[in-house]
Amino acid sequence: MLALTLSERSLRLRCDHPMPEAAGEALIRVHLAGICATDLELTRGYMGFSGVLGHEWVGTVEAAADSSWVGARVVGDINCACGRCDSCQQGRPHHCSQRTVLGIVGRDGAFATHTRLPVGNLHRVPAGVPDEAAVFVEPLAAACRIVEQLHIRPSDRVLVLGLGRLGQLCARVLALTGASVTGISRREGPLALLPPAVAGVRLDEADDLRGADVVVDCTGNPAGLGLASRLVRPEGTVVLKTTTHDLAPPPTNGWVIDEVRVIGSRCGPFAPALRLLAAGLVDPRPLITACRPLSAGVEAMAEAAAPGSIKVLLQP
Amino acid sequence: MLALTLSERSLRLRCDHPMPEAAGEALIRVHLAGICATDLELTRGYMGFSGVLGHEWVGTVEAAADSSWVGARVVGDINCACGRCDSCQQGRPHHCSQRTVLGIVGRDGAFATHTRLPVGNLHRVPAGVPDEAAVFVEPLAAACRIVEQLHIRPSDRVLVLGLGRLGQLCARVLALTGASVTGISRREGPLALLPPAVAGVRLDEADDLRGADVVVDCTGNPAGLGLASRLVRPEGTVVLKTTTHDLAPPPTNGWVIDEVRVIGSRCGPFAPALRLLAAGLVDPRPLITACRPLSAGVEAMAEAAAPGSIKVLLQP
Repeated sequence: MLALTLSERSLRLRCDHPMPEAAGEALIRVHLAGICATDLELTRGYMGFSGVLGHEWVGTVEAAADSSWVGARVVGDINCACGRCDSCQQGRPHHCSQRTVLGIVGRDGAFATHTRLPVGNLHRVPAGVPDEAAVFVEPLAAACRIVEQLHIRPSDRVLVLGLGRLGQLCARVLALTGASVTGISRREGPLALLPPAVAGVRLDEADDLRGADVVVDCTGNPAGLGLASRLVRPEGTVVLKTTTHDLAPPPTNGWVIDEVRVIGSRCGPFAPALRLLAAGLVDPRPLITACRPLSAGVEAMAEAAAPGSIKVLLQP
Repeated sequence: MLALTLSERSLRLRCDHPMPEAAGEALIRVHLAGICATDLELTRGYMGFSGVLGHEWVGTVEAAADSSWVGARVVGDINCACGRCDSCQQGRPHHCSQRTVLGIVGRDGAFATHTRLPVGNLHRVPAGVPDEAAVFVEPLAAACRIVEQLHIRPSDRVLVLGLGRLGQLCARVLALTGASVTGISRREGPLALLPPAVAGVRLDEADDLRGADVVVDCTGNPAGLGLASRLVRPEGTVVLKTTTHDLAPPPTNGWVIDEVRVIGSRCGPFAPALRLLAAGLVDPRPLITACRPLSAGVEAMAEAAAPGSIKVLLQP
């Protein structure tokens, strides 16, 4: 099958990649897949991954042991847990010590005509949610994760640093709490994409916003955590979404003195994300920069990495 | 009066330091004061403090506008708040943006025959609590702060890294929750001081304790946060008590992937600390390494900085 693969930091479009062996798992035909910042990080060596990239997707089940799934339009949780380790037994399957992660750890992803996942990972997409919205469920779930980890109060003042792919979705989800949410970007373009519920401020004016209750670092930049620490109030919370190759020492003395909380945040729950899309409470489609055929996958990855690009989709 | 002062990183015993001007505040005769890791950090330039050191103390009120305080044996909260800034108005006086802090920020401390504080900061010491225990109230309150910030469950597994002055008290307070608490030290001496409720393990065996629910970094060492991050379970909590001059980049990617929480923790509530002492639930007196006259304050500071030293007291 056609697949976009990564090997030793080198991207390659392959026409002859073997179809996934789906013994015990659902075989899925991919309709649409999204390029994520993590995909770009993987090409720079993050996680040492090799194989088919892609973990944001929507597709149709072509084969499954349970025939009730065949023909269903689905999205799927990317973390595949063992069910037996301490984390699984304690109810944290996303942190399974033996997990594989679609297109990220030990498991081929969705930048291909077909992919596979256990049926337990699948979620049916409601009829009213088009593919162009459903393909955002995985990052939208990651945005929902913040409100699962942290009680955001309607009277809170919340800042989202970085308005790329994930920051845009986090800002939209956080604004649903009724909190005052401001997105901060270095550039004008991402600010123009914000919905009316989210205010937008340029990075060079961010210092006026000090004292925020919650600051979410979606910058993907090693300096983001330092900036977030400067903008949060004493006893406030920094949510850290950024993983990066480079490390910068954050102001840990300030965290002690101001009793700041820092919470790492990764993958989230799919069901709430689908509900938000089905209810029209979040519409991610304005974030689509381009939709390219999978056959132009290598070029599309470069396009996704370009400044000003938000979400580039691939169509197998 | 006799006072141990710091000026441009230089310690000096002064016989002629002016008595504190106590207009509107209580004048206190110091019975006993404790040397803290923060005092040692201050001599290395932390906070750029100059003046009389000392923030752990017990004494007697000699003068106060409200005469009901005169003659009372007291301890005192070291943070003096303005009552008007955003933090004060929002109920966080310990984070007052205009605060002075006894012997740390803009206010002479207690390594002197006399000190002063607003009466609102004072707490009466119950008759059954001797001076040698009451002098530990400030760091014991800082240990209590952890359980004020964080719900420690009786079924949690908790590690305390670093068994110096603060780590010893944190371990004792945390063990009162019923949680399984293990103190970790590089040296045998501090392990031998742990009470029966706290297990002790050498640093070189700490990796066997991975997967802890909560890890408290009291190492005072820039490497402590990295070690704590390695020992905590996914979705677990690192409590950061360490402030240090040197910075080491902590594993922030791991915090995101494992969704670790890091909570900075500083000063705590005095009333619970006094209750724990009065009830005999914590006895800090075995932590006293030596009690020296204030006139030997410069030498006592060096003694407090020596390996193996836990708590050195000063008697004015």
